[in-house]
Order: sequence, then C-alpha cells, then structure tokens
Amino acid sequence: MDGIGRELLTLREVPVPQPAPDAVLVKIAAVSLNYRDKMVIESGRGLPLIFPFTPGSDFCGKVVASGKAVSRFRVGDRVMAAFTPDWTDGLRPGNARTPAYRTLGGYYPGVLAEFVTMPEEWLVPAPASLTAAEASTLPCAGLTAWFALAERARVRAGDTVLIPSTGGVALFGMQIARAHGAQVIVAGNAANRERTLSAGADYFIDKHNDDLVEKVYEITNDRGADIVLEVIGGAHLGKAVQAAAVGARICQIGALDGFELSAPAMPLMLKDVSIFGIGTGSRKALEHLVRAVDRTGLKPVIDSRYAMQDLNTALDHLDKGPFGKIVIDIDPAG
Amino acid sequence: MDGIGRELLTLREVPVPQPAPDAVLVKIAAVSLNYRDKMVIESGRGLPLIFPFTPGSDFCGKVVASGKAVSRFRVGDRVMAAFTPDWTDGLRPGNARTPAYRTLGGYYPGVLAEFVTMPEEWLVPAPASLTAAEASTLPCAGLTAWFALAERARVRAGDTVLIPSTGGVALFGMQIARAHGAQVIVAGNAANRERTLSAGADYFIDKHNDDLVEKVYEITNDRGADIVLEVIGGAHLGKAVQAAAVGARICQIGALDGFELSAPAMPLMLKDVSIFGIGTGSRKALEHLVRAVDRTGLKPVIDSRYAMQDLNTALDHLDKGPFGKIVIDIDPAG
Amino acid sequence: MDGIGRELLTLREVPVPQPAPDAVLVKIAAVSLNYRDKMVIESGRGLPLIFPFTPGSDFCGKVVASGKAVSRFRVGDRVMAAFTPDWTDGLRPGNARTPAYRTLGGYYPGVLAEFVTMPEEWLVPAPASLTAAEASTLPCAGLTAWFALAERARVRAGDTVLIPSTGGVALFGMQIARAHGAQVIVAGNAANRERTLSAGADYFIDKHNDDLVEKVYEITNDRGADIVLEVIGGAHLGKAVQAAAVGARICQIGALDGFELSAPAMPLMLKDVSIFGIGTGSRKALEHLVRAVDRTGLKPVIDSRYAMQDLNTALDHLDKGPFGKIVIDIDPAG
Amino acid sequence: MDGIGRELLTLREVPVPQPAPDAVLVKIAAVSLNYRDKMVIESGRGLPLIFPFTPGSDFCGKVVASGKAVSRFRVGDRVMAAFTPDWTDGLRPGNARTPAYRTLGGYYPGVLAEFVTMPEEWLVPAPASLTAAEASTLPCAGLTAWFALAERARVRAGDTVLIPSTGGVALFGMQIARAHGAQVIVAGNAANRERTLSAGADYFIDKHNDDLVEKVYEITNDRGADIVLEVIGGAHLGKAVQAAAVGARICQIGALDGFELSAPAMPLMLKDVSIFGIGTGSRKALEHLVRAVDRTGLKPVIDSRYAMQDLNTALDHLDKGPFGKIVIDIDPAG
Repeated sequence: MDGIGRELLTLREVPVPQPAPDAVLVKIAAVSLNYRDKMVIESGRGLPLIFPFTPGSDFCGKVVASGKAVSRFRVGDRVMAAFTPDWTDGLRPGNARTPAYRTLGGYYPGVLAEFVTMPEEWLVPAPASLTAAEASTLPCAGLTAWFALAERARVRAGDTVLIPSTGGVALFGMQIARAHGAQVIVAGNAANRERTLSAGADYFIDKHNDDLVEKVYEITNDRGADIVLEVIGGAHLGKAVQAAAVGARICQIGALDGFELSAPAMPLMLKDVSIFGIGTGSRKALEHLVRAVDRTGLKPVIDSRYAMQDLNTALDHLDKGPFGKIVIDIDPAG
Repeated sequence: MDGIGRELLTLREVPVPQPAPDAVLVKIAAVSLNYRDKMVIESGRGLPLIFPFTPGSDFCGKVVASGKAVSRFRVGDRVMAAFTPDWTDGLRPGNARTPAYRTLGGYYPGVLAEFVTMPEEWLVPAPASLTAAEASTLPCAGLTAWFALAERARVRAGDTVLIPSTGGVALFGMQIARAHGAQVIVAGNAANRERTLSAGADYFIDKHNDDLVEKVYEITNDRGADIVLEVIGGAHLGKAVQAAAVGARICQIGALDGFELSAPAMPLMLKDVSIFGIGTGSRKALEHLVRAVDRTGLKPVIDSRYAMQDLNTALDHLDKGPFGKIVIDIDPAG
Repeated sequence: MDGIGRELLTLREVPVPQPAPDAVLVKIAAVSLNYRDKMVIESGRGLPLIFPFTPGSDFCGKVVASGKAVSRFRVGDRVMAAFTPDWTDGLRPGNARTPAYRTLGGYYPGVLAEFVTMPEEWLVPAPASLTAAEASTLPCAGLTAWFALAERARVRAGDTVLIPSTGGVALFGMQIARAHGAQVIVAGNAANRERTLSAGADYFIDKHNDDLVEKVYEITNDRGADIVLEVIGGAHLGKAVQAAAVGARICQIGALDGFELSAPAMPLMLKDVSIFGIGTGSRKALEHLVRAVDRTGLKPVIDSRYAMQDLNTALDHLDKGPFGKIVIDIDPAG
Repeated sequence: MDGIGRELLTLREVPVPQPAPDAVLVKIAAVSLNYRDKMVIESGRGLPLIFPFTPGSDFCGKVVASGKAVSRFRVGDRVMAAFTPDWTDGLRPGNARTPAYRTLGGYYPGVLAEFVTMPEEWLVPAPASLTAAEASTLPCAGLTAWFALAERARVRAGDTVLIPSTGGVALFGMQIARAHGAQVIVAGNAANRERTLSAGADYFIDKHNDDLVEKVYEITNDRGADIVLEVIGGAHLGKAVQAAAVGARICQIGALDGFELSAPAMPLMLKDVSIFGIGTGSRKALEHLVRAVDRTGLKPVIDSRYAMQDLNTALDHLDKGPFGKIVIDIDPAG
C-alpha cells in the first residue's frame, strides 16, 4: 500500500530483509484474510500507517535465517504469530486510557509479502497436523475463539454453547466447543443451515425467522446457554443475556451490529451472568491452541484460496460473507 | 400490609408462630430498610404477594425456640438470614427463563414483626462484634458489596476500586475494599465529600462537576480502576468501562439510572474487561462476611434509627437518600 | 449385614419403606460395587455401623412413590445419588478436626436392596443415554474422575493427562479427559496394554518395566504432564511431581500404595505445581457429569455383571482387579 | 567470589559496566541477604558459577544510565528486580525435566556491587513509601509471601492464616495477610512470642511446647486454617494438612526440615485441601506488591543493617536466625 484505497495496493520487489540479532527471517507460505484487512486497505481505519505499508496479519511460513541471539527456532521450522504479537502471557499490554491494539498489518507491518522478519518472541511453532493454508487461519479467528472458550469461559463437556453467527470466529468456536464435548447451538442465515450442521453444530437457529431466545429455552429445557460467543454486538448482547443460563459466561467478541452494546440489567444480575471482553489472545494461548489442534485433529474451515495476484478478487469475496476463511497462497510449496 | 399502599400498612397482634421440625422461632431485634421495601409497600413491585403480607428483609434477632430436628442453632443464638435465603452455596437457584428472585419480604414473608419462624438452613450466626442494629444492615447491602468484591472481583491489597455512589452498598463496598488494603475512589454529590472521606475513601469525585473518567485516569496515572462497583446502571456502565484498567472487573449491581445497560464495545474488548452481574450473595458468603466483620472491626454506617411505630417516617427518610442505613428497632433489648 | 464378616451377609425380606414428606421411594435397578464395599462387609472399616446394615453406595433406580413435599422428581423418573449425598454444591461439609465422610453404605444406610427411601435433595436424574447398569457406575468412580478433571484441574483440549492405573476411577478419567480433547497416557500392568489402548488411551506405559517419569518426558518432549490423576498414593506422588509440567495440577485421589504421601519439594516449588485433594464430588458436579455423558456418548467400562444372589462371587472378583466396574443387577427390568 | 568459600570473597574495583541497548545501568543502594546467599558463597550449592562471580539477589538501586532502546525507565528512577528476573507474567519458564531456576546471584550474576546492568524488562519501580534498605527486602522474601497469599491462595478478610515460622517469608506473610484483613496465627520459638505479637500476629503458638494442630483447632473452634504458609517442609506438611480447614490452601514454600515432603492422604482428600508449590513469583506480581506496600503502608521488618565491608559479620548473623531481614547498605545516599 502506498496510501489508502484499493488502487494504491501494489506488489513490489524489495530486498529481502535481514533479521536483527533476536529476530528471524520468515518465508511466508500462506496468509489468511480478515475483514479488517479489507478495511485497512480501503479506509486505513484511522490507524497511523507509514507508507509504503504491508497489510495482512495471519500467516504461516518457514524460518529461513535467524539472528545470532535466537534460541527458540531453527531454520526450517514452520511458524506463526499471534494477531497482537507482543502479548506474550498473563495480562495484556496497555492501560485504561490507551488500550494496546498493536496488531500485525495495523500497528506493526503486515505479512502479505514473500519475506518478513520478526522477533522470535512473537513466534509459535505451527501445528504439524495442518497445511500452511490451514495454519494461517489460526492467529486471529482461531485464537480468538480459543481464548474465549478455553481460557476465559472454560468450556467443559456437557456445556451448551450458543454461537449466533457462521463467521470465521463462530465456526472455530463451534469446532473448539465440540472438541471439549460441549453441545453447540448456532444461529445464522437459513441458507447456511445444512453446511453448519454438517460442520458439527448440534442445532441450527434461523436468525431471521426464529425467536433466538425462545429456541434456546426450548432446546435446553429452559436451562439456557452456559456460554455465548457474542460476535454480533450492539443490542444483540441483550439476547445473549436473555438466553444465558444461571452462572453463564458471555464472551463479547464482535460488534457487527454496532459498537454501543446494550443489555437488560435484571437477568444479568439475577442469573449471576459474567460478560468477558475478548480481543484475540496471547502467544501462550496460541501455543495451547496449536497443541489442541494437533491433538484433536481439528481442521479449519476454508471457503476459498487465491493466489497473491488475485488479492482483489479475494477482498471482494470477503464482502459476500464467506463460509469459512479466505486464504492467499504465497508460496504453495511452503 | 393488607394490600398495596402505605395506608394499608398496619401493626397487628397475631399469635406467635410455632417452628416446624427443621425451623426456629426468632425474636426480631432490629430490621434494616432497603429502598425496595418502600417500593413493595407502595406499589407491590409486581410481586405475587398474599395478604396480609409482612414486608422487610434484613434483620438480626435471637433464637427463642427450635424444632426438634434443628442442629445448627440453640436458643439464645443471635442470627441473621441472607436476602435470598434459599441460596446456600455454589450456583444460585433458577434457570434461564425464570431467574430465582425469592427474597424475604418479597417472595417469602418478611421480617417487620416481633417473631418469625424460618428453616435453620437459612440462618447465619450474627457477628459478635456488632449490635443487633448494626448486624441488621448486613444481609442485603453488606452481603452484596462483599459478594461483589471478595467472591467475584477478588479484591487485593493495592487494587484501585471505583465506587460511583454513596448509597448503602457503596459505603459497604468502600469499607470492605479498604479492609483488604485497596485504594478507594468514591464519586457522589459534593455535599457528601467530607463524610465520605472521613468514612474511609481515599479520593472523592464530585459526580456533577467532575469528569469521572478523566479523574480516575489522573488519580491512577492512566492505569485505571481494577474494580468498579457499578451501582448506577443505564449508560453509566459505559463510564465504568472507560475508567477500567486492563484486566479490570466491573460488578454490575444496581440500576438507578435505568434497567437497560449500555457500554462501548471497543474498550471492553481491548482491555480484557469482565462484567459480573451481582444479585446479592449466598448464605456461605454471608458467613464469610460475618467472620470478616468480626476480624476487621468493620462497623456499618447507620444514618438513623426509628421505632416500629415510626415506620412511615423511616420510609420517608429513604426518599431523601440517607448516608448509610436506616434501621427500625423492634426489640431494643435484643 | 447382621455384623461384620461375609458370613453375616444375608438377603432379608423387609417391608417396603415409606418415604418422608421430602423423600422418595426408589426401586433399585442396579448397584455398582467399589472395593470399599468389600472392606465394609469384611472389616467394617472402623465405621459406626448399626446392624442390620445394608452395604453398597452406587445405584441407579426408579422413583416409585414420593412424599408430599417433593417437587424435583416424579414417579417413573430414573435417579442416582452421589457417594457423599449431602454435599450439594460449593464447599463440602465438615471441619478441620472432623472431615465429613458421610457416604451411602458407610455412614448412611446402603443400597444393596430392592427399595430405598432418600431425601429428594440427594438425587440426580440418571443419564438418558445409559442403561441402569451403566448409570450405576457413575456416583463414585465416575464422579471422582469428573470432579478431579473438570472441576478442579479444568482439563482442556491439548492437555496431556497422566493416569498411572487401569482401575475404575482411572478408566473414567481416561474417557473424560479424551471427551475434552486431551491426550492420555495410562500406566498399568502390561497385560492391560491392548484393552487400555482400545478403550482410548493414546500411550500405555508398562508400570513394572518402564521408567514412568522418563517415558512421560519422552512422550511430551520434556514438557511433562499437565494433569496427573494420582490414584496410587504413598511415594508414588513423588513420581507425579517429577512427571508434572510447569503449572501442572495433580489430583490426589487414591492411596493404594499407602496413606502417607511423600514427594520431593524442589520440583513441586520450582514448577509451580498444585496438588488437589479429591474425595468424590458434589451433587451439582454429578448433574454436570450426567449432561456430559449424554452429550458425548461416553459409555462406562463394565467388566462383569452379577445377580444379587451371586454377590459373594462378585466380591471375589473385586480382589482380582477387574478391568472396569462390577455391577449387581437387582431389577433387570429397571 | 573467585571461587567457593568465604575466604575467596573479595571486594574488587572493576570498570563500571555499560548497558546494552535494552538495558540500564543501576547504582545499587542496598542489598538484602538471604540464607541462600550464604550457601552460594560457602558451598556454591552445585550451581554452574563462572568466577569471578558476584553473589546477592535482592537489591534496590537507582537508574544512572540507559541503553537507547529503553522505554520503561528514566535516569533517576529507583528500581528493583524479582529474584527470578526473567519470569515476567503468567506461566513461569522451564519444563518438566529441567525447571527454570535462573536467579540473580545464582544463575545470573548477583548484585553485591556498586553498579550492575540489567535488561529493563527485569525491573520494577521501587515503592515510593520505602527506603532503599526496606525496598531491598521485597524481591525474594516479600514477593514469595505475596505470590503465595495474594496470587495463589487468594487471601480474604476473615480468613485464618497459619504461619509456622518467624523467618523472613513468614514475617512478610503475617503482614500481607493482615493487610487483607485476615487473622494470623504464627508458630515459633517462645523467645519470639512478644515481638511477633507486637509485629501483628493475632495468636502465637510455642512450636516446642504446644501441640500446633490442637492449638489451631482451639483458636478456630475446630474450623481450621483457611491458608497455611508451609515454610518448614519435610513431615511438617502433614501438620499443615491436619490443621487445614475444609477447602484450605497450603502454600509449600520452604524445606528447612527436609526436601522430602510427607503428609497423610485422608485429611487431604476428605477436606478438599489444595497444596500449591511456590517458588518466588513473577515481575508482574512484584509490581502488584509494590502498589500494595505503597497503599497499605506495610514496612518490612529489618533486624540489622551492615556496611559492605562487614559482609562477613552479616553472613554470621544469618546463622543465628534473625528476626526480620539483614540488609547491606551499599550507597547510604541511594
């Protein structure tokens, strides 16, 4: 990107960068797109970008060179980085006035490139059981769903998890909840009913024609949902609170319906419901997700793959609401 | 109460009740009023009351007789019960569709009486360090603040706790936070500044003339509040989210400003903030509060005490926003 | 039992008991035996039994009559009770000097009978997906493994769980860990290798010929086990600590190798290891296990089933170390 | 140190070191000694020391120069580092086979020097309310007690905390427990009774003449201790388990009585007791301790202060069991 706008997106030959002593050089194999990437390219999203700027955050690649102080990786290792790469473990960076939102392809330079250099502290070994294209989908959507379910809401076998969407985080949430033995109720467009059920949902609610809350009461015999992945936001949070079981955990993840959340106070208070704000997850959480993927055989849902030169077509596809992730293959041999 | 409305409130001589095998007879010494009691008396609050109905929920009294299966109490023991007396420990009763809100003086008969009978399972020994009048203030306001701070938000020494009110729960919150070594910022009417600081607040914010969020940033050097006792509700929850530190816990307790909560999504998500719905607490939590009161010497803030025949005056006082609790002395020798 | 010793074990015709107002009458369908039952029958285990005494704790049966105050169950419902039936939720009963160990068939009368009455508060609906014989195995062995893994150690997908036994709790632990997406390493007698791997273990260690700790290091690439179900006790706890990952949770469940536990201090301290004492679980935890069983299709491993008149043969079988549970069918139509 | 043994301890003039880009130069003001320092000097403790080696781990000093990439500190800031300085937050480093025990003055060079350089990531601002001598006592003893009580056992007002020692960690534990409103029972030599009670203990048990467990039952009316700081180790862990309340947390911190811990299995299991291995704490925990110290006015107990040239006398003092910490003043103006 030489500036904001699709027309300023160009592929450019630049020298291969050299890694600093604590960094490695990564040859990118695949990059998975998020809707945010489209917004960064088209509007800059208000971010303080320095041009030329490389967009893209989620990748899988191979270490091809490393600085002399590097100890965690060797040449040939397949690696990934979390979406917010400087959040290692424990409490995330930032303070009350200025939350840290230092993402790849937003604050830090992005990864839609053949080579990138990164501090080794940002990197995580990619799962052995996934291809590079599959692995590239984990750092944002996969990690967010994992952090919400496994780290914050602590999903357990027998829990009921409500997921009111069929987007990227939602599909990962469905797979991760099932991998823990939970029952999953997904709500979405009727057109996605069959493939959502095939992909593992126990129940599907038509979000335009069904009454979401009543359907959850019916399915759970009035018990409610133990966990809700609230990816819609706005006033939809109120439905999550209504559908919530006593002691339920709601993970507030997305804000498609608006950045001002609202919900009724009484059921929140009388049902001892907790709401957890989720903004992706830490590098340690990504490492745990990698182990979980290798252990359970979870395969990310990919809608389509494109070559680098078809990036514009891929960005258009994001607008249509893909069922699963969109991946750009950079090095098909990676 | 023979019906709804202050004019249907009468003192009546009735036979002293007999306890069931698993129950005790309690001679009431003091009853602490909540604003809710005024609403129940004046409007019924939509509750399914059976008349004649006795209002009032928070009491301290003495066991004067007990059923033959009773094992936890003896005649002479000073006792209290939680506001929601059938919530013993762990998860509260109720389900997603019908939260349990079975309170004394609401669902169950109340305690503005000389004698009541209650299952022993509802009762807790009163703190040895408090008078009956003081102890009577714990079961709703004290327990709510305790449950929020000690059970849910897990306050620790060095934490900053923001309490945007000087009401009953707020003052208990201030005292309990301080008893754990936390720093307390209270916001309220300027008229209450001096007595709030004397009662233990570290900082006081004038809620009408100061910018609450900026003041919190200033006091904490931008770190924010680790815990917020959100007793205002409505759109005020948004201020709590703005003032919150990374990893903060907000306890949503009251809804004076409205039953529809709202808050911005981005700081909630980017600061990993948790919101806990709080609806009083369990009997086990009340037992822990009693130990904490006896250990730390915490003395509840009482604004005024009235005799039973002055109940109407006491109810009027509730409207004026007392600084601390209003207590009705029933048996001054108790 | 008319006294201690197998020879005092007799089947006796007694009138069908009547339930108290808060109790139900249960027609027992199946009873699962624990080694403890054999010890109670043969030695009394030092318990204050009142003869005639009915042994046995783990059952599944059907409600055939109920007291007038009963609200949670109806005639025809299939039910179970936890091994320590008066522990409902939250903190268990008892105090420092006198831990509560009030079990069915130990402190409370047992269930090796055609009919028993029990307070409804003790009961839990049986899982719809299991037969009565299968369900009867949950209240002690199943619940203990569930409480350890799901409530205390909070197992997650990708965790490595070490289980150094193939006994009843161990096999449930293996199944519950797998239902949460964990990797399971079981150690036992070489003779059980094949059936343990078939039943779902990822790795099997020969406890007589392999070095347990080294094998765990090897399998986990030195990372260690995230969770250990320590069912052996004595000095074996030391091996659990050696095999433990940084931040690991060890659940101390059994004491086959001795009631005096021992372990090295340094790895416990330098690896931030936690040890949780486990003594079965609460009724609420049993309810959650039931949901998990119905959701995941977990089927308890049963070694053999016997008729009531073959109780002596069944007790002999317990001595031989069955692979899975021993069940007594009381009402094969139940 | 030019080798192992007191006679190889020499003060030496060396050039002031230069900080690397991500490091700062610290002028040491005070160093607090641990018994470990004496062992390192006298026996090397089996550590892979490279001579000349500087012993000592706990310091407070002032930043006097900084590398060009440093952003968290400025010249003039008073700073400290945790005992295990590379443990930042969340899970500590290391694995099952090789726990990380990378301490200052053990693995990393120590601080008994006028100047040291350290990565800024290791440092924490010193508390404003303490002198350098007082602050120097926090990084090992203070942090260990804080991590145990506030991070792992989550002490609350009204809890009973048993501390069977009057050593360095024990006295900090007493002060931190009290700062949270807990009741503290300390056991030690009768000679320390009065000063322990003056320093804030609620009860003192004579460890040679009293029955520790019975005394705890008596003081708590059989309820037991909610938290035990087990700093003795060996078979003393068994007493901690006996004295523990239902649901208690035991923090295993020290091993004065032996590195092989032992305890009875039954009370551990029947009282749902947890044992947490504690090996100091993270940098984030030290930051929280600093806030707690500044907020509560906690003043570390210092037995004696010595000048650098009297290091040998100070080491001798460690052998006599000081009541509080021993501090070496390096820069009395610091």
